[in-house]
Amino acid sequence: MARFFLELAYNGTRYCGWQVQPDAPSVQQTLEKALAVLLSQECPVVGAGRTDAGVHARYYVAHFDASDRPKVLAPDFIYHLNCLLPYDIAVSSVREVLPDAHARFHAVEREYTYYVSRRKNPFCRGLAAFFSYPLDVTRMNEAAALLLRNADFTSFARLHADNKTNICRVTVAEWREEGEQLVFVIRADRFLRNMVRAVVGSLLDVGRGKRSVADFAGIIEARNRGSAGSSAPAEGLYLTDVVYPPEIYVEHP
Amino acid sequence: MARFFLELAYNGTRYCGWQVQPDAPSVQQTLEKALAVLLSQECPVVGAGRTDAGVHARYYVAHFDASDRPKVLAPDFIYHLNCLLPYDIAVSSVREVLPDAHARFHAVEREYTYYVSRRKNPFCRGLAAFFSYPLDVTRMNEAAALLLRNADFTSFARLHADNKTNICRVTVAEWREEGEQLVFVIRADRFLRNMVRAVVGSLLDVGRGKRSVADFAGIIEARNRGSAGSSAPAEGLYLTDVVYPPEIYVEHP
Repeated sequence: MARFFLELAYNGTRYCGWQVQPDAPSVQQTLEKALAVLLSQECPVVGAGRTDAGVHARYYVAHFDASDRPKVLAPDFIYHLNCLLPYDIAVSSVREVLPDAHARFHAVEREYTYYVSRRKNPFCRGLAAFFSYPLDVTRMNEAAALLLRNADFTSFARLHADNKTNICRVTVAEWREEGEQLVFVIRADRFLRNMVRAVVGSLLDVGRGKRSVADFAGIIEARNRGSAGSSAPAEGLYLTDVVYPPEIYVEHP
Repeated sequence: MARFFLELAYNGTRYCGWQVQPDAPSVQQTLEKALAVLLSQECPVVGAGRTDAGVHARYYVAHFDASDRPKVLAPDFIYHLNCLLPYDIAVSSVREVLPDAHARFHAVEREYTYYVSRRKNPFCRGLAAFFSYPLDVTRMNEAAALLLRNADFTSFARLHADNKTNICRVTVAEWREEGEQLVFVIRADRFLRNMVRAVVGSLLDVGRGKRSVADFAGIIEARNRGSAGSSAPAEGLYLTDVVYPPEIYVEHP
């Protein structure tokens, strides 16, 4: 048996999220089925993390084990896997990793990107959140900068989640304008469930003047989920990067 | 009665094209219904041109007449019209024009853009054509340059079309690479029906080595639709600009 990291992207619109759930199609289950056909074996996959229903991934990593190493590393493996997968899941590469490498536990950094469409756009239904009211980007970035200085994100965690700790080290948290869209990029060593959508929801409250930057600082200080704003819609959210230590990969020269 | 130019964009996936057809939803009909509700009058609209089923428009112009000028020019007219229109049609502005201004006949220049996706992309189903085989962009541009030197496009016209002439003055015809996509931009004073998809289909034949640049020159010379390659798929095609003489617009200072 050898272990592999599969790099993929998916449009989450049709799925209940990454994670297998009863009675709803998930990305995980769809991928497992395609791998099972291709490798003629049961093929459980473990993903870099859950994503909620409707959330997308431009870059996602999942690991699986296979006995037929040459088949997985053959040049046409990705091509055949893409032919088996539906249009909304695309694999881009596969790499052998150490036998105990883990797509979720060994990730040292993740990046999420949130897209806000400010005008009705016929081409991004389900692919960006639409907000028509005016947003003050400068103030949103003042508030976002506070995320870099704070380590406890209890206020943005899901209630009753079983995290041992709510400490996250955020290294990037910035809004920028891209044409008609507002784009928020956030990188951290780890994220709590629902954290990005809760952060974006509160930052949008700051942008539209419903809360001040000082209010946002207060939300963080409160360490209480009840103090934050409502979550921003799933459709604007993309997982865009996952980073692993380089020594996890087995090189095939 | 005053006449207005409406600027809009639409995702053509769900439509039989711009033009009203029996038993299939068209962009024209959908727009006419929304305007009729908003203006409480029958409101026929005339578009800048037909687009085929599945073809998109990032920029499209249509004219209509209305007796209630203040209502059309009120600041919230576009907002209310967008609320009445489905998600895949978005209007961006309305301008009063001279009473005999015509969205189709007075257009002096149009631009189409064609998107070719070279990798499976979960986010652009229906929004770009997918070609996985290698394409030689340099050779495609050598062939495209010939379009600027030739005026008779009979080889790319639909058979039995009732054009009085097949002469078009092409001013831009160029492929460029944008990330994973290949993008073709073509501008001309006029286009024949089906012309862009026929041109793109033949240029893709050149790009994959099925035809040479000299073959492409021969297609143009032949002045015979039978000599060109098959049409490229509708989903990659966008109308992206329509230009009118500035004196057509009525200024409201």
